[in-house]
Amino acid sequence: MPPFVATAVAHPNIALIKYWGNRDHELRIPENGSISFNLDGLYTKTSVRFDPSIEKDTLCINDQIMDGPDLRRVSQFLRYINGISGKHYFADVKSENNFPISAGIASSAAAFAALSLAATKAAGLDMSEIELSRIARRGSGSACRSIPEGFVEWKPGRDDEDSYAISIAPTNHWDLVDVIAVVKGKHKSIGSTAGHTFARTSPIQKARVADAPRRLALGRDAILQKDFSALAEIVEIDSNLMHAVMMTSNPTLLYWEPATISIMKAVAIWRQSGIPACYTLDAGPNVHVIVLSSYITEIKNRILELPGIENILVAPVGGAAKFID
Amino acid sequence: MPPFVATAVAHPNIALIKYWGNRDHELRIPENGSISFNLDGLYTKTSVRFDPSIEKDTLCINDQIMDGPDLRRVSQFLRYINGISGKHYFADVKSENNFPISAGIASSAAAFAALSLAATKAAGLDMSEIELSRIARRGSGSACRSIPEGFVEWKPGRDDEDSYAISIAPTNHWDLVDVIAVVKGKHKSIGSTAGHTFARTSPIQKARVADAPRRLALGRDAILQKDFSALAEIVEIDSNLMHAVMMTSNPTLLYWEPATISIMKAVAIWRQSGIPACYTLDAGPNVHVIVLSSYITEIKNRILELPGIENILVAPVGGAAKFID
Repeated sequence: MPPFVATAVAHPNIALIKYWGNRDHELRIPENGSISFNLDGLYTKTSVRFDPSIEKDTLCINDQIMDGPDLRRVSQFLRYINGISGKHYFADVKSENNFPISAGIASSAAAFAALSLAATKAAGLDMSEIELSRIARRGSGSACRSIPEGFVEWKPGRDDEDSYAISIAPTNHWDLVDVIAVVKGKHKSIGSTAGHTFARTSPIQKARVADAPRRLALGRDAILQKDFSALAEIVEIDSNLMHAVMMTSNPTLLYWEPATISIMKAVAIWRQSGIPACYTLDAGPNVHVIVLSSYITEIKNRILELPGIENILVAPVGGAAKFID
Repeated sequence: MPPFVATAVAHPNIALIKYWGNRDHELRIPENGSISFNLDGLYTKTSVRFDPSIEKDTLCINDQIMDGPDLRRVSQFLRYINGISGKHYFADVKSENNFPISAGIASSAAAFAALSLAATKAAGLDMSEIELSRIARRGSGSACRSIPEGFVEWKPGRDDEDSYAISIAPTNHWDLVDVIAVVKGKHKSIGSTAGHTFARTSPIQKARVADAPRRLALGRDAILQKDFSALAEIVEIDSNLMHAVMMTSNPTLLYWEPATISIMKAVAIWRQSGIPACYTLDAGPNVHVIVLSSYITEIKNRILELPGIENILVAPVGGAAKFID
C-alpha cells in the first residue's frame, strides 16, 4: 500500500477582537467569538505522509526533529484525523515557518491550519472550508481562523459542530497592514494553551465575555464599512481587555515589557495626530500596529525611533490556507 | 469679632485595596470599599483662618497663591463647612506639603484631611473622628482614609451618613513600609476626580466592584494576621484590576510608563526569590513597593538598579490626622 502524501500552507492571523478562555478546553470551544485577518507573507508549510509501514509519528519543524510535548500534541491531532478517515496510520510530518518562532509571533495557528489541510488531504478526505476550520480548531483554537481568506470571524458556537470560522470580507476588501514591532527580551513564559485555562480565575473574565457580542458587532461593522477610526477604538479596548484578564488571573500573566508600553502610548499619540494606526497585542510583548498600507513606511520609521525594538515585520491581509501539492 | 484660626497636619495614604469609581460623584460615595495605610514622614500642614472681615477666600500652597480650579474646589468645601457651623465667613487657607507635588504622590488625600480638621476647628466645631472622615470625604474621596490612624478601611456606605473610614489596626500593628519608586517622565495627564467619572464606561468595572467584598476580606484578614504572602497576592491583583478598568474605559487611561512595567515585573521576581515585597500603583506611573521594614535598604538598592527611576521615597505606617495649633 503506498504512502498518502499532501502539502499545504497557511498564514498566521492577528485577532482584532480577541479569543481568551475556553468554554470547553479539550474541544477548544471558546467563551467568546473573535475576528482576525490573515497575515500575508508569513506562512507555515506542512507536509504530511501517512505511511502504513511506520510504527510511530515523526515531527520535523524547520529541519529539527521534535519530540516531547510538540510531538504529543501533533500525534493526538493525527489520531483525531485517523478517527475521521478510518485509516489508522502513523505519519511523518514536516513543517517550515518563514518567520522566526523566537520572534514571538503566534505560530500554532498557521501550524495547525496547514496541518489540518495536509493531513486530511493525505488521509484521502475531502473537506469543506467549514469542516477544515472545525478540524483546525481542535489543534489550536485560533488555527480555525487561518483556514478562510482575508477578514475572518470565529463564531464561538456551543459544541464541536457549530464552532468554526468564516470569511466576513475577502483578502482585497481593505488594505490594512499589520506592522509587527518585535520587542527585545524573553518571550512567552506561559503559552496560550495554558493561559486559556487561567482565564476564568480572573474576576473580570465573565464581564469581558458578556460584553463580547457588542465588541464583535463594532469590530465587524468597522471592517465592513472600512471605518478605521471606529476599528481603532474597539481594537485597542479589546486588546486591553484581554490583557486586563491576563494580569488579574491566577497566576498573574503580565506579558508586557517596557518597550510594549512605549509603543502603545506612542501609537495612541500618533493616532491623535491624524495617522490611522492602532495597536493590538497577542499573548506576548510584541505590538501589532494595524495601519492603512499607505502609512507603512511612516509607521516603520516611527517605531524604529523607539527604544527596545528588536525588528519589524510587515504583513498585509492574507488569503486562505491552501494545498500546494 | 476675632478671626478663628486652626492648624492641622495629615499624611497621604496608600490604598492596598483600591477605590475607583463613585456611586455618587458629588458626595463622593464610592462604588466599593477600600483599605489603606497612612504614609508617615510625608504630610500636608494646613492652617485655616475664618475672618468675618474678608470678602473672598484665599489659598496659598507651598507659598504660592492659587486660583482657578484649586481655589474653587477649596471654596466649595469651605462653604460646606460654613453650612455646618452656621457661620458664613470666608477664609484664608495656607498649606504646605513636605513632598514634591510633582512627584506624583496623591496629595489631595492629605490636603483635604488636614483642611477638614483645621477648618472645622477654626469654625468652632468639635467633631468625632467619624464625622471628620465623612467631611474629608466630601473634599476628596480618599481623604477620608487619612483621618484615622494606621491601617484604615473606608466602609463605602450608601449615602453621606454611612460612608466613612475607620482604623482597623493601629500604626504600630505591623511594620510595613511603602518604598515609593518615583518614575521619570510626565505625570497624571488626567487626575483622579475626572478619572472616577470614567470608571463606569469600562465593561469590567461592575465585575470589579462586585468582587470587591472578597478582596476586602482577603486584604483585611491578611493585615490583621500579618500574613505578607496573602497580602501581596491580593494587593497586586487589586492594583491590576483598577488599572484594568482604567485602560478599558473611555477615554482610555494608561498611566503606566516603561519603568513602571520594569519595577512591577522585578518585584514579582524578587518575591518569588523570598523577599516580602509587592507592588501597588495609584492613578499614576509610580510604583509603591510594600515591604517589611527590615528589607528597606535591600529593596531601595534593587530599585535603583532599574532604569527610569527618578527617586525613591520611604514611608512607614503613619498616624492619624491631628491638630498642631
